[in-house]
Amino acid sequence: MMRESQVEFLNTLPNKIDFENSVLIYDQILEKKFKKWISKFPRKLKVRSGESLKTFRSFSVCTEKVLNLTAGVSREKIEIVSLGGGTVGDFSGFIASVLKRGVFLTHIPSTWLSAMDSAHGGKTALNSAKSKNQIGTFYPAHKIFVVKEVLLSQPEQRAEEVLGEYYKTVLISGGTLFAKAAKTHKVSPNILWQQLPALIHVKQVVVKKDPFEKKGIRHILNLGHTVGHVIESKLAIPHGTAVRLGLAFSLEWGARRGLKAKAPDQFLLPNNVLVAALRKIKNPEMVLSNDKKISDNNTIQFIFVKKPGQVFVEKVTMKELVKEWHRQAKA
Amino acid sequence: MMRESQVEFLNTLPNKIDFENSVLIYDQILEKKFKKWISKFPRKLKVRSGESLKTFRSFSVCTEKVLNLTAGVSREKIEIVSLGGGTVGDFSGFIASVLKRGVFLTHIPSTWLSAMDSAHGGKTALNSAKSKNQIGTFYPAHKIFVVKEVLLSQPEQRAEEVLGEYYKTVLISGGTLFAKAAKTHKVSPNILWQQLPALIHVKQVVVKKDPFEKKGIRHILNLGHTVGHVIESKLAIPHGTAVRLGLAFSLEWGARRGLKAKAPDQFLLPNNVLVAALRKIKNPEMVLSNDKKISDNNTIQFIFVKKPGQVFVEKVTMKELVKEWHRQAKA
Repeated sequence: MMRESQVEFLNTLPNKIDFENSVLIYDQILEKKFKKWISKFPRKLKVRSGESLKTFRSFSVCTEKVLNLTAGVSREKIEIVSLGGGTVGDFSGFIASVLKRGVFLTHIPSTWLSAMDSAHGGKTALNSAKSKNQIGTFYPAHKIFVVKEVLLSQPEQRAEEVLGEYYKTVLISGGTLFAKAAKTHKVSPNILWQQLPALIHVKQVVVKKDPFEKKGIRHILNLGHTVGHVIESKLAIPHGTAVRLGLAFSLEWGARRGLKAKAPDQFLLPNNVLVAALRKIKNPEMVLSNDKKISDNNTIQFIFVKKPGQVFVEKVTMKELVKEWHRQAKA
Repeated sequence: MMRESQVEFLNTLPNKIDFENSVLIYDQILEKKFKKWISKFPRKLKVRSGESLKTFRSFSVCTEKVLNLTAGVSREKIEIVSLGGGTVGDFSGFIASVLKRGVFLTHIPSTWLSAMDSAHGGKTALNSAKSKNQIGTFYPAHKIFVVKEVLLSQPEQRAEEVLGEYYKTVLISGGTLFAKAAKTHKVSPNILWQQLPALIHVKQVVVKKDPFEKKGIRHILNLGHTVGHVIESKLAIPHGTAVRLGLAFSLEWGARRGLKAKAPDQFLLPNNVLVAALRKIKNPEMVLSNDKKISDNNTIQFIFVKKPGQVFVEKVTMKELVKEWHRQAKA
């Protein structure tokens, strides 16, 4: 069993927060825009988002600061409020999960990616020197506020960078969500906002069946991520875009293996973008071998789409995957 | 719900361990004595025990080492085996709980204190710059091997240093365990070994009722610890001895408040040892204010003994406690 997060959709930043006893950990880029709301917190910590936040070093520095900020507040009253995107949420969530062996955690995701994906499901994380998310806990936020004014304050382009995660979710879901996406040619921020409750629900259903990622069910959420992560880490391409390329890779490989799933054109980027990315990375196995999902006998849990709404995990060998990589790179 | 640890009592170090995929984290002082057994682990990490092990710095250094040692081993197969006392167990347990979001954990406690207390109940910990155990998780070991050859290899004096924890447990338990202890004037290592299963059981029963320390039940295990911790941290007195002094403090305060509980003479150290310790510490409130058990309105959950087998928690104010401290220091 894992605690279920209580999710609330709001137009503006919430007022029903125990401002007095909370520590706000927030992305510095939001400071100007939400100055007034941020100023309500007497205890707060400004951070710079990005994977470099998720180091042991900033973990120790920030945790000591949070401890100082909360000196004299009893454990039961301490609340960490995280306002930011995925890296800020991963990081704040990890701190909340280990501070005095766990304190109340509220997420206010500020990016489409975090609002749709990383804020939900309870994964917190730090990176090791060599690889992402090697350290972490399963610690669902007690509360998640999904706030329209925060999400819509992002540059419109951000809505494009989340399309990988969006189409992934749509393919896992199938049904109405897929039908709607198939008919939509340009996913605007307003469409994302409208569909957010349904998109989050897809993830919640999967997580609930396998909260600690032990039954292989939760793995399906990694659709597009095995290859996506390699592209992201090697070429510094935004996560959502990299996942979209990974999605195309998976569909193409699936087709080669006889699966009939097809994605509408607008789901994928032009094929030459994927080919170029695959070509640039000479040794994908180097990154893949650090993947947490790898098994000891060099097999990887790879996710294929049978058809929208039917996604499955299959063990493939590293050799097979690398072979397919080079095949697609030559296309 | 919290996972229950499987506890096994053995005469010699276990052979049924997956030596191949485990990482042994062990106290360097045990290296010579158990060289042969330690050599069975291809992946291992030698540490120096003590509170200085439980820093952010050694957490990051050791976790990176463990990640390197386990490169290529799948998460499901990784096992952390901790061979050492309380600090080694707290530290290894914390690493196990956050490594790839949690791996298999085996404790082999090497001190009476850890065998009786800290190895059980799932608390892992790091220290902050200012205070002990401010960081941690609830992460019970999957397996605990309590090994006679390891425990009896300690200098005999170690059996004395655990008496605080021993008498605390006996007072919480009451019944046969108390009756036996009341008749025993010198607690030898062999007596400790014989009584260990019963002593561990007392803790297990309490922890099971309140695994995450949320109902106030688990607090009773802190009998003698509120004052004990201050003495331990300020005067560098061994934990078990400090707790024994804290126990005397609690009984004396209880008597003043009309409780009738009396401990047999051999339970307590001569009163002048406690008085001397209390006198040496001028500002107990400084350490107490960092206590995790403190509430925001300056109240502390203090544990009193009504009679053996009946221990209870009562909120006292910091002021009352400090007043009692100075009263007992003058005695």
